[in-house]
Amino acid sequence: MSLIKELSKSAATAARKLAVLSTQKKNQVLNDMAAMIRAKADTILQANEVDLDNARQAQLSDAMMDRLTLTHERIEDMAVGIETIANLADPVGIERELGQRPNGLQISKMRVPLGVVCMIYEARPNVTADAGALCFKSGNGVILRGGKEALASSKAIASVLQDVLKQHDLPVELITVVPDPDRGLMQELLEQRDHIDVVIPRGGEGLINYVTENSKIPVIQHFKGVCHLYIDKDADFEVAMQLLLNGKTQRTGVCNAIEGLLVHQDIAAQFLPIVDEAMHNHKVKMHVCERSDEHLTDAEVISDDDFGQEYLGLEIAIKTVESVDDAMEHISRFGSHHTEVICTQNEITARRFQRTVDASVVMVNASSRFSDGSQLGLGAEIGIATTKLHAYGPMGLESLTTEKYLVMGTGQVRA
Amino acid sequence: MSLIKELSKSAATAARKLAVLSTQKKNQVLNDMAAMIRAKADTILQANEVDLDNARQAQLSDAMMDRLTLTHERIEDMAVGIETIANLADPVGIERELGQRPNGLQISKMRVPLGVVCMIYEARPNVTADAGALCFKSGNGVILRGGKEALASSKAIASVLQDVLKQHDLPVELITVVPDPDRGLMQELLEQRDHIDVVIPRGGEGLINYVTENSKIPVIQHFKGVCHLYIDKDADFEVAMQLLLNGKTQRTGVCNAIEGLLVHQDIAAQFLPIVDEAMHNHKVKMHVCERSDEHLTDAEVISDDDFGQEYLGLEIAIKTVESVDDAMEHISRFGSHHTEVICTQNEITARRFQRTVDASVVMVNASSRFSDGSQLGLGAEIGIATTKLHAYGPMGLESLTTEKYLVMGTGQVRA
Repeated sequence: MSLIKELSKSAATAARKLAVLSTQKKNQVLNDMAAMIRAKADTILQANEVDLDNARQAQLSDAMMDRLTLTHERIEDMAVGIETIANLADPVGIERELGQRPNGLQISKMRVPLGVVCMIYEARPNVTADAGALCFKSGNGVILRGGKEALASSKAIASVLQDVLKQHDLPVELITVVPDPDRGLMQELLEQRDHIDVVIPRGGEGLINYVTENSKIPVIQHFKGVCHLYIDKDADFEVAMQLLLNGKTQRTGVCNAIEGLLVHQDIAAQFLPIVDEAMHNHKVKMHVCERSDEHLTDAEVISDDDFGQEYLGLEIAIKTVESVDDAMEHISRFGSHHTEVICTQNEITARRFQRTVDASVVMVNASSRFSDGSQLGLGAEIGIATTKLHAYGPMGLESLTTEKYLVMGTGQVRA
Repeated sequence: MSLIKELSKSAATAARKLAVLSTQKKNQVLNDMAAMIRAKADTILQANEVDLDNARQAQLSDAMMDRLTLTHERIEDMAVGIETIANLADPVGIERELGQRPNGLQISKMRVPLGVVCMIYEARPNVTADAGALCFKSGNGVILRGGKEALASSKAIASVLQDVLKQHDLPVELITVVPDPDRGLMQELLEQRDHIDVVIPRGGEGLINYVTENSKIPVIQHFKGVCHLYIDKDADFEVAMQLLLNGKTQRTGVCNAIEGLLVHQDIAAQFLPIVDEAMHNHKVKMHVCERSDEHLTDAEVISDDDFGQEYLGLEIAIKTVESVDDAMEHISRFGSHHTEVICTQNEITARRFQRTVDASVVMVNASSRFSDGSQLGLGAEIGIATTKLHAYGPMGLESLTTEKYLVMGTGQVRA
């Protein structure tokens, strides 16, 4: 049996034991993991030095170095993250009644783990701890395939978590690290349909497309974030400007930043000059429709087909729309099913927008930057799904489970 | 634009309108569809005659001819089926509160349609009406790609449904039939990731494997049904025999029939002779372990590796197990995640079995034959999923939806 097949099969066998572990026991293990991460901080930092040395020699970008670098503070964050997950409600075993059939059968559904989750990620060593803890709490085995840049750090973190598993007489294969970031091994991993239930890639679009194209296992996909903010004719301008500035400038390289501003024609003449000043103050480049351009200075006029860009920087597209319907039509054409926001004081318009817009998160009078698992109250997230199968939007513990049917009878047979 | 791309895109555009249609309106349309199916019974039967003529010339098997044949009675069943779907609760728009965040944001989730469902099926013309109605009620567009054998019948049924859509000023593309069963067109269909959200194949293992291998769109898979009945030491023998006979002999060619019988060693000597007599009476061939063979006559002894067959006929595998754990171990090795049944009067053992066994339906003292959507109270089913992503087990209206997050704020921004 090949290494990858063996790893996958062992993870699946181990996961069956974890599936029935009590919540209390899982929380004990998680709290011990947090404590051990703190106790072994120096060992983890030493391993991280190895990765950083290699990264310096390979002359990786500053952004990559930053993502790769661990500090005592970041290790403390990891430990706190695991404790947070220990404190979250356990979805496994939760039952909901579906009712009694005329023949007396009692039907219900029970939440159960998916089985084995395979995480494919790039240079962030903290994903090892986050994904390890989330999968453990939700009763799933996890196979971690991180990029080569963070391999020593990831192995060190996983080894700490595995030591705690051992202390509790649990199989270490519950948290498995693929020891070699070779592409051929990754391909083989993506074929282990019999042992792995879902693949979650986290990283750039290239990685996600590669995994989607090559996986025989279902993939939870997170494509780009082209998020819009629509300012309705009934908007409070002060709120509108807060949402615009927070969404566009608080952090620019993220998937929940605002990339498009839509403004109702009735307020364009009053509102756009305010936008103009703020965008210039924050050095945000504007790509705009002709109607908007009348109220703006130094903006670039673009054609209708040029909307829908994910700028990931200090740039924004601006369009004047005729109505909320026109805004929703634009979003349905150019949005990426990630996060869409309406700013309005009109409740009927707000509800219509929320009901109609097809995005994983639809907000009223709130910043798009809240679109992530911890901000929405999931405690932590394993990813964000922009396709609709299984999960849609930020994925927490519940998204790492599924439901089976339970049937209780007294000897009923089918006629 | 190619025909297939055009069909898919039009279906996606139409589906956006359907997504926000009121429940009342959808039910009116469905009831009108049922009435129109009845009114146009003769037209549908004429089209069916064309398919039957071709089938006779192609010398199709009797089983295939049976599946293909429509009668006034079967058309009435179709109409009643659509009315049943009209009477089911609409999952679309249902909201559940997730709570308020410390900053005042209100978080909830709302059920929404998936978008466009592509059904790929073989010779059953009634799937056209069932899938058409289920997808319509759940707010999804549907693309129906049936086998060439039933093409004239499927087109006739779809055309009736489309007439009703027209009467209600709804786009006919909501129910689209691929006009040509060419394999190349099917391949193209499986690549329309931008417009189709899920593919549901219904048919033999060959079809399901083909679709899984070739689809770029997520596929809901229904693999084989290797269902077991475990008779615990605390079982009521009378109930046990009822479940065995109903599961094995009431209908044999179906995925929820019993293929394996597991018997606790403490009761094997008393129980297996009763089984022996009943199996001989019903002409069921027995494939058994050596320990079981001691209490049986005319059984074939098989090795451990030979368990796990899907017989789909009057054959059964029988094994004596040491304990409920041993039974669950056997099921985890040979089961197909479809339906597993325990027969016991011991509630603790029953609950442990239900909690531990990884199958989409886990039953206590009830026949495996109840494992289908209408028997479990879903009203109708679009398929049964034996993999865990998105849905697990019989899929009704709810499985044709997903949930988006709704966030209500008053101007909150992220610090």
